[in-house]
Amino acid sequence: MMSRKYNVVVTRQLPEAGQILLQDASDIEFVQWTEDRPCDRDWLLQHAKGASGILLMLTEKVNEELINAAGPQLKVIASFSVGTDHVDRSILKSHNIRLGYTPTALTDACADLAVMLTLMSQRRGGESLRKVLDGQWPQMPWSPLLLAGPPIRGATVGFLGFGRIAQATLKRLLPFGIARALYLTSRPRERAREHYIGLLDGSGIPVEPAQDWREVARESDVVIVGCALTPQTKHLVGPEFLATMKKRAVLVNIARGPIVDTDALVKALEEEQIFGAGLDVVENEPNIPADHALLKQERCILVPHIGSANTETREQMATESVRNLLAGLRGENMVNEVVL
Amino acid sequence: MMSRKYNVVVTRQLPEAGQILLQDASDIEFVQWTEDRPCDRDWLLQHAKGASGILLMLTEKVNEELINAAGPQLKVIASFSVGTDHVDRSILKSHNIRLGYTPTALTDACADLAVMLTLMSQRRGGESLRKVLDGQWPQMPWSPLLLAGPPIRGATVGFLGFGRIAQATLKRLLPFGIARALYLTSRPRERAREHYIGLLDGSGIPVEPAQDWREVARESDVVIVGCALTPQTKHLVGPEFLATMKKRAVLVNIARGPIVDTDALVKALEEEQIFGAGLDVVENEPNIPADHALLKQERCILVPHIGSANTETREQMATESVRNLLAGLRGENMVNEVVL
Repeated sequence: MMSRKYNVVVTRQLPEAGQILLQDASDIEFVQWTEDRPCDRDWLLQHAKGASGILLMLTEKVNEELINAAGPQLKVIASFSVGTDHVDRSILKSHNIRLGYTPTALTDACADLAVMLTLMSQRRGGESLRKVLDGQWPQMPWSPLLLAGPPIRGATVGFLGFGRIAQATLKRLLPFGIARALYLTSRPRERAREHYIGLLDGSGIPVEPAQDWREVARESDVVIVGCALTPQTKHLVGPEFLATMKKRAVLVNIARGPIVDTDALVKALEEEQIFGAGLDVVENEPNIPADHALLKQERCILVPHIGSANTETREQMATESVRNLLAGLRGENMVNEVVL
Repeated sequence: MMSRKYNVVVTRQLPEAGQILLQDASDIEFVQWTEDRPCDRDWLLQHAKGASGILLMLTEKVNEELINAAGPQLKVIASFSVGTDHVDRSILKSHNIRLGYTPTALTDACADLAVMLTLMSQRRGGESLRKVLDGQWPQMPWSPLLLAGPPIRGATVGFLGFGRIAQATLKRLLPFGIARALYLTSRPRERAREHYIGLLDGSGIPVEPAQDWREVARESDVVIVGCALTPQTKHLVGPEFLATMKKRAVLVNIARGPIVDTDALVKALEEEQIFGAGLDVVENEPNIPADHALLKQERCILVPHIGSANTETREQMATESVRNLLAGLRGENMVNEVVL
């Protein structure tokens, strides 16, 4: 006799490999949002009713409303994301609901982007592109210091947060000739607990925990924000941090927008307190109109949260989130589970 | 008795370190163009008369006209550049005039830029920036494959030309997880004669000479143009080359514009024969108006020849070109001399 199937809601069409895994799982019955935009909240709340598992995106808030709409049989939320700030963890914990996410799949893609944004901000890439697109090149006389920026060779790179992506970024930056790395975690002055690629010892340059954010701001030629968004990290990069940075330093944010205070950053760029910024994320994204103050700053490069946007990564995130979903339903080990 | 001083012409104000070296050289008397734009040809031809040395930029053609204007006492041309395609080498050779250039100073800066352009073209950086600047982000629904590009991990990287800059680029790309490197020099199928950083053996991945351009085009996920411009390399990347490339491959040019056939590249991008392009140089630069066909291609990133544009590099190029000038006058060894 066939046992009853698990009801599952999937809030988006997945890349092909994920879709196939879903269709091949014989113990689930799933409904799926089919349009090429985030699913309507009403649709989600309605279909969540009676579901044992929900596979969802960063765009869907996981809160008491959703959990109550689903009902007590809900066993698992599988999020297609590395971040989980769209999820109210305490409510999941109190209902004994497991939470899967996909942090490992996008390490490479995000670290690649961190290097791209570092080079773009040092080498004035955004400014350069804009001048060419505006047709300014013909009238731009070459001169020995035209569009010159600070070098990456010899740089001290400061990491706010030192998880997988930060460490993978450090690994990529080593052959550029950086001189030193500093990192600040939630345990200042303590050596990072996890090291993923042997770089704490084997990098050939000093890689050291910072005393506090002041040391990171003061010492770094490149500051890379790679920490989680928490009440403690919100606006960590604010007026004081930016004023402490070197005039020739650049700021890169590949983590979450609200860690950087946008108004303070605009002011710092305007007053040339820092050399430039490269942002994959920003407060209030995606609501960044063309007349946003940040876009007036030529030394700021802003891309639309494409950290994980390479095809293979997105395929892998899809299959991984389906695996997490199925493991949550079946009481098995997930590929990556958040300890609540 | 003081010996007669050498007359010298300098076609541009140099970064400070170079200026100081010039002023401190007691055996020269120099005239210098002072405006913040390339010097007038008439000014150059007039002041070259009687000069023993000329320190000049890429913007000044070194041809029979200039050599004749100077006169038989001319001993040295010191070019503030890595390329020498603005120089007619045969005329220098026939007049026994030495040629200095500054190839080593900018290796790092150009290799950094090659990595930046590689990542920008794979990760759709130009497209991303343009969408954000145009205010499209708020209306751009997130989806699993939005703005996704091919990964650098696992890529085969093909180099056209495999000198210092190419090899320094390869070194930087290794920790991104590239799988294989191919190179084509003026001696196809032969192992590169010079290797600067031990990468021909010690890179941990296969690094091999290509049979011909077809192999580079066919096999590579990233093609990096880093060769000199010669009659043989002009339009080497043309319709046939581009048609042979993979649909998901990107083209990066950090060498000289005319190596890539612009019309063919526009067509290849338009017809999605290749995934994208990142160019520091382009045919007819700097005459690229805002309505240039290449600028209509969102998958093409074009920056205004900023390969060597980092402050330290430009300072070093300045001091090196002054040292070459003085060595040429004094009959000493240059830092870098072109064998004519």
